[in-house]
Amino acid sequence: MTPKKTALIVSAHAADFVWRCGGAIALHAELGYNVTVACLSYGERGESAKLWKEGKSLQEVKDIRKAEAEAAAKALGVHDLVEFDLGDYPMDFTRETRFKLVDVMRAVQPSFIMSHSKWDPYNSDHMQTTQIVLECRATAQAWGHNPGEKVLGAPQVYLFEPHQTEQMGWKPDTFLDITSVWDKKRAAMEAMNGQVHLWDFYTRVAQQRANHFKRNSGGMSGGRDCKYAEGFESIFPRTVDEL
Amino acid sequence: MTPKKTALIVSAHAADFVWRCGGAIALHAELGYNVTVACLSYGERGESAKLWKEGKSLQEVKDIRKAEAEAAAKALGVHDLVEFDLGDYPMDFTRETRFKLVDVMRAVQPSFIMSHSKWDPYNSDHMQTTQIVLECRATAQAWGHNPGEKVLGAPQVYLFEPHQTEQMGWKPDTFLDITSVWDKKRAAMEAMNGQVHLWDFYTRVAQQRANHFKRNSGGMSGGRDCKYAEGFESIFPRTVDEL
Amino acid sequence: MTPKKTALIVSAHAADFVWRCGGAIALHAELGYNVTVACLSYGERGESAKLWKEGKSLQEVKDIRKAEAEAAAKALGVHDLVEFDLGDYPMDFTRETRFKLVDVMRAVQPSFIMSHSKWDPYNSDHMQTTQIVLECRATAQAWGHNPGEKVLGAPQVYLFEPHQTEQMGWKPDTFLDITSVWDKKRAAMEAMNGQVHLWDFYTRVAQQRANHFKRNSGGMSGGRDCKYAEGFESIFPRTVDEL
Amino acid sequence: MTPKKTALIVSAHAADFVWRCGGAIALHAELGYNVTVACLSYGERGESAKLWKEGKSLQEVKDIRKAEAEAAAKALGVHDLVEFDLGDYPMDFTRETRFKLVDVMRAVQPSFIMSHSKWDPYNSDHMQTTQIVLECRATAQAWGHNPGEKVLGAPQVYLFEPHQTEQMGWKPDTFLDITSVWDKKRAAMEAMNGQVHLWDFYTRVAQQRANHFKRNSGGMSGGRDCKYAEGFESIFPRTVDEL
Amino acid sequence: MTPKKTALIVSAHAADFVWRCGGAIALHAELGYNVTVACLSYGERGESAKLWKEGKSLQEVKDIRKAEAEAAAKALGVHDLVEFDLGDYPMDFTRETRFKLVDVMRAVQPSFIMSHSKWDPYNSDHMQTTQIVLECRATAQAWGHNPGEKVLGAPQVYLFEPHQTEQMGWKPDTFLDITSVWDKKRAAMEAMNGQVHLWDFYTRVAQQRANHFKRNSGGMSGGRDCKYAEGFESIFPRTVDEL
Amino acid sequence: MTPKKTALIVSAHAADFVWRCGGAIALHAELGYNVTVACLSYGERGESAKLWKEGKSLQEVKDIRKAEAEAAAKALGVHDLVEFDLGDYPMDFTRETRFKLVDVMRAVQPSFIMSHSKWDPYNSDHMQTTQIVLECRATAQAWGHNPGEKVLGAPQVYLFEPHQTEQMGWKPDTFLDITSVWDKKRAAMEAMNGQVHLWDFYTRVAQQRANHFKRNSGGMSGGRDCKYAEGFESIFPRTVDEL
Repeated sequence: MTPKKTALIVSAHAADFVWRCGGAIALHAELGYNVTVACLSYGERGESAKLWKEGKSLQEVKDIRKAEAEAAAKALGVHDLVEFDLGDYPMDFTRETRFKLVDVMRAVQPSFIMSHSKWDPYNSDHMQTTQIVLECRATAQAWGHNPGEKVLGAPQVYLFEPHQTEQMGWKPDTFLDITSVWDKKRAAMEAMNGQVHLWDFYTRVAQQRANHFKRNSGGMSGGRDCKYAEGFESIFPRTVDEL
Repeated sequence: MTPKKTALIVSAHAADFVWRCGGAIALHAELGYNVTVACLSYGERGESAKLWKEGKSLQEVKDIRKAEAEAAAKALGVHDLVEFDLGDYPMDFTRETRFKLVDVMRAVQPSFIMSHSKWDPYNSDHMQTTQIVLECRATAQAWGHNPGEKVLGAPQVYLFEPHQTEQMGWKPDTFLDITSVWDKKRAAMEAMNGQVHLWDFYTRVAQQRANHFKRNSGGMSGGRDCKYAEGFESIFPRTVDEL
Repeated sequence: MTPKKTALIVSAHAADFVWRCGGAIALHAELGYNVTVACLSYGERGESAKLWKEGKSLQEVKDIRKAEAEAAAKALGVHDLVEFDLGDYPMDFTRETRFKLVDVMRAVQPSFIMSHSKWDPYNSDHMQTTQIVLECRATAQAWGHNPGEKVLGAPQVYLFEPHQTEQMGWKPDTFLDITSVWDKKRAAMEAMNGQVHLWDFYTRVAQQRANHFKRNSGGMSGGRDCKYAEGFESIFPRTVDEL
Repeated sequence: MTPKKTALIVSAHAADFVWRCGGAIALHAELGYNVTVACLSYGERGESAKLWKEGKSLQEVKDIRKAEAEAAAKALGVHDLVEFDLGDYPMDFTRETRFKLVDVMRAVQPSFIMSHSKWDPYNSDHMQTTQIVLECRATAQAWGHNPGEKVLGAPQVYLFEPHQTEQMGWKPDTFLDITSVWDKKRAAMEAMNGQVHLWDFYTRVAQQRANHFKRNSGGMSGGRDCKYAEGFESIFPRTVDEL
Repeated sequence: MTPKKTALIVSAHAADFVWRCGGAIALHAELGYNVTVACLSYGERGESAKLWKEGKSLQEVKDIRKAEAEAAAKALGVHDLVEFDLGDYPMDFTRETRFKLVDVMRAVQPSFIMSHSKWDPYNSDHMQTTQIVLECRATAQAWGHNPGEKVLGAPQVYLFEPHQTEQMGWKPDTFLDITSVWDKKRAAMEAMNGQVHLWDFYTRVAQQRANHFKRNSGGMSGGRDCKYAEGFESIFPRTVDEL
Repeated sequence: MTPKKTALIVSAHAADFVWRCGGAIALHAELGYNVTVACLSYGERGESAKLWKEGKSLQEVKDIRKAEAEAAAKALGVHDLVEFDLGDYPMDFTRETRFKLVDVMRAVQPSFIMSHSKWDPYNSDHMQTTQIVLECRATAQAWGHNPGEKVLGAPQVYLFEPHQTEQMGWKPDTFLDITSVWDKKRAAMEAMNGQVHLWDFYTRVAQQRANHFKRNSGGMSGGRDCKYAEGFESIFPRTVDEL
């Protein structure tokens, strides 16, 4: 049996999946994964300052952000962009919303899930999202939830890179080489016209993480070259047959 | 180029490498690794209560422990058992001793190193050993130390399972299935006649870790079967091409 | 005045009180405590995989789990099993539910309370329960809540042993010898027919904790014998007249 | 442009702002700040034991506590005491309540905000308040929330001193000399007639913190004198032009 | 067999045992314990500022501090004051010194040991002492160290209260009521003429800890009265027969 | 009295003070501080891979590194570069060496000290240096050490930015705007010819920290512009008269 491999990204706002794991999405798409992005909001209230300063209405902001997110998803090779449209800042999760996320988890049956850091004093939407992801993962594993559906296994949950990592207590334990798909990530970032100031910021993040990749893959003695990388923190232990 | 893969275990006392990573040793030996064990002491003073109660002399205790360690190493398929004979409780590391460990690191060029937990209020030998391992790893990477020798790359350092894990602040992030080599680990444990009370203790540890392996490899929904496992905590991030 | 001593266990799901503190319950029952168990759900959705695989309906699963929980409670000598029947995975706590738990706390006036670990990425029901226990403990102490009732004192809250302790950041500071009541705990575990795979798992947990008991009660030099034990983490400091 | 400097204190219960940061309030009022106190409840249920023991009704307790809070605020030179009257133990925050706090943040435009410690197992009202403060700070910064209003900048959030600091994981990084306004803080404390037992407790806290002030401002070699101080933990990094 | 109960305090400097656990010493002396204090230095260089400002010589400072320590020990009912005279700031522990401490541990066979906090950026003597205490405890437990001597059991190690507790990451888990011996502790403190400024400081510490004692022994609902207390952090788990 | 303000940087290897706090040095030099750099080694063994690969001898490597360090110090406006020449990888601190550092601390009487992060598994020289700095700071404060000398006050110890910050558990709490002296820092970096690969790495670090500076100084609502910044973690609390 060789079903397609899949992955699920849960992004609080429209652009988080671009800045924080756009490379992982593009790379795994190229590796043959179907990557689904659950985009919980468009970040219309809290991450669209530029548009509001231009005097756009709420609907206009949402439309623009939606179009940008879809363009970015396309650039990255996202298989399915599931738009929850929950609103942001704050994000209030109803039971219905959470069960919708459970449905997505079960439908996708991901090899791994990605979401935000556990702590983020700058951005409560982010930390609430991670709590909800963990809760929904547990519900998706419950045999008594919608009995008859295929329950979820035990996919790893990777926490992608937050802004100001040290303030979030986020510690990456996995660096992924995204050099081969860098152009796609840059293109996806450039689709986010409302946050131009972040294009170079996250380009530099990728360059710094590439340096860390090299340091940890051999260092001064043959560390493998790498020009762009992304870092992730794992919630759960790995199970392996060789170290 | 296909040189043999190698691994290095740094064990404070004669039996630590048996209880804490005997499965990993045997498994990687079967996978074709040359596994070197640096055994810093025989645990003659602090981990041989039974022998002392029998009235043995220091030399007798050391001889017995040495023979046990060698038998265990043989059972596990250890490639090279390097006996430092530093004495234990306490362990005082001279500059010369540390440089000898650097020499071993460079000679072995391990894919990974293993040692003790970072904190252990019950056993200061253990935590000092880990500090020394980290120091020696850095020295072995220094191009100016014995210039001309092949410097060390950036091997992972895995911390193997201490006694009373929660008290040590040790958190495993990697579970290794050792079912296929369990008989070898049990045989090696049974070579340690001075610590019979630990045979069943570490058998149960392996069974509990197997349960954790299953929980993390799929859980109730197809978690891969596993009867015996070992857990490890990684000091450094991994560098990967696929998550 | 010599009122009966009491204790209160708050268990998210039907079986948690059995695996995690069945020994403590049985032991304190024998010591003359009235032990109340607040069982918030039957674990019908998330901890009954075996029954769902057999095609049982929700009501059947609940009935079976309820019967098992009651049998286990009886085996342990539980004084009162208060069944909240809140549903599980997820567990949504209303104000009314929380006040019902406050009522139980005040009615029982426990010498100590027990509940789950503070963090559990595998099981959000568990960590939410502990938050609610702390909130309800504070409300039960409030003189203005149902004025006229006897308010709660300041009972210790012990966190009982979670699955995969290190992942939960749970660190036991108290080991309780349950050897004398082991048969009762094993009998209670065997009442949980839906989770047969856990009987031996938690038997081994008790054996390992007994080893830790011995290590901490005297170690190699006269550590008191102990065959089965349970471990607990205290939330609050102890107040003593002798160390 | 020289607008008045402002500060905002978010106090779960009527007296928290007195005990925990009364000195900071009085000092900054003297320095020319308009200090607003958002008092979320009167602490009528959970922090008025003395009044309930006297047989007062809920309305009486609230009236008394309200009068005390207002007297204390006056003694400290509070510019505006905003009484939310949410009820306490537990405190349930609706979306409406949270948006009201956002309104206050935007109206005040504080140089800094103060609230409770992040963790408090004795008092869930306290830790929930801090979560809400962080959430509301993020919403107040969102350009899409009530577009057209002046959005909030990035004020520091100081966590004031909880009871039993070590249990809360609270670590002060800033000590403020309140010697010059001590009489005002003591007067404000003495306005809280329901908690007489805390007057001397918090006087001693201020004396101990003054000792710490001296130790950190020069120690034995010219540490500046200080008789009363308060300690604070900062959530966010500082931005400076000189160290 | 009813041998006398014993305890061992390891104090880096002459006065630490007075400020930090004088109450525990006096109380346990009254309870019938033989309490030994291992005083590693007189604190002559680093904790005698007042004497140096007066122009005293090193020998004079040591003589004065020695006399004070002996007077304080007498006031507290110390059974044996073992003066190591190692020098302070910094404290360099030789192998010989450490074995001398092992000898003391074995001779005393304490029910519990007390020493400093694990971390203290203000005072490296303190944190080194705790490391040495843990190392020596392990050596004292080793059957091969001076075979034939009675080895040490597994006594608890309590960390007594440092200055500026939160900076040290010290968290008390045990409060001891020292009201009945307060006069002795105050008298011992007053024997330390070189540090008059600390008399009231540590009196207030004892009063604050008494408040914490009450909060944790019953709080508003019958918390036992207590006027003076000391707090301690335990390194090891307790082993109990009743919670 | 207006003595010149001073600062002291303790750098394990020749280049650490350039990459990690070159901006702070140059800025404070411009602000009128005399900045002393204690350079413990030239990093000749462990941080000069390029030179060793070229076949240089130890003396040649040291001479080159010394010249580079002096050029960098000059570019930054360092007042005094104190070269300890201790050797590196590993760094063994004798009592004499430590007292020499105490002498420097007392001679400089710095307003603040800077050194490495507390934990660094990649580089044990770094973490040992910080331990020694804390020890020497305590010795320098001791009135009995070289009585008659002016003792040290209580200067802040800032930990400058390590490589791979999250792995070191380093969390910056202070961002310093170094835009005005950026050219000097870049020039100093370019003096380090042996580590060309780090010039751009640390340029990007400064740009990312500038982004953090802006986020924390006002964010989207008027965050002050900043093009280059450095981050620091404080060991000790601040003492202030206004928040």
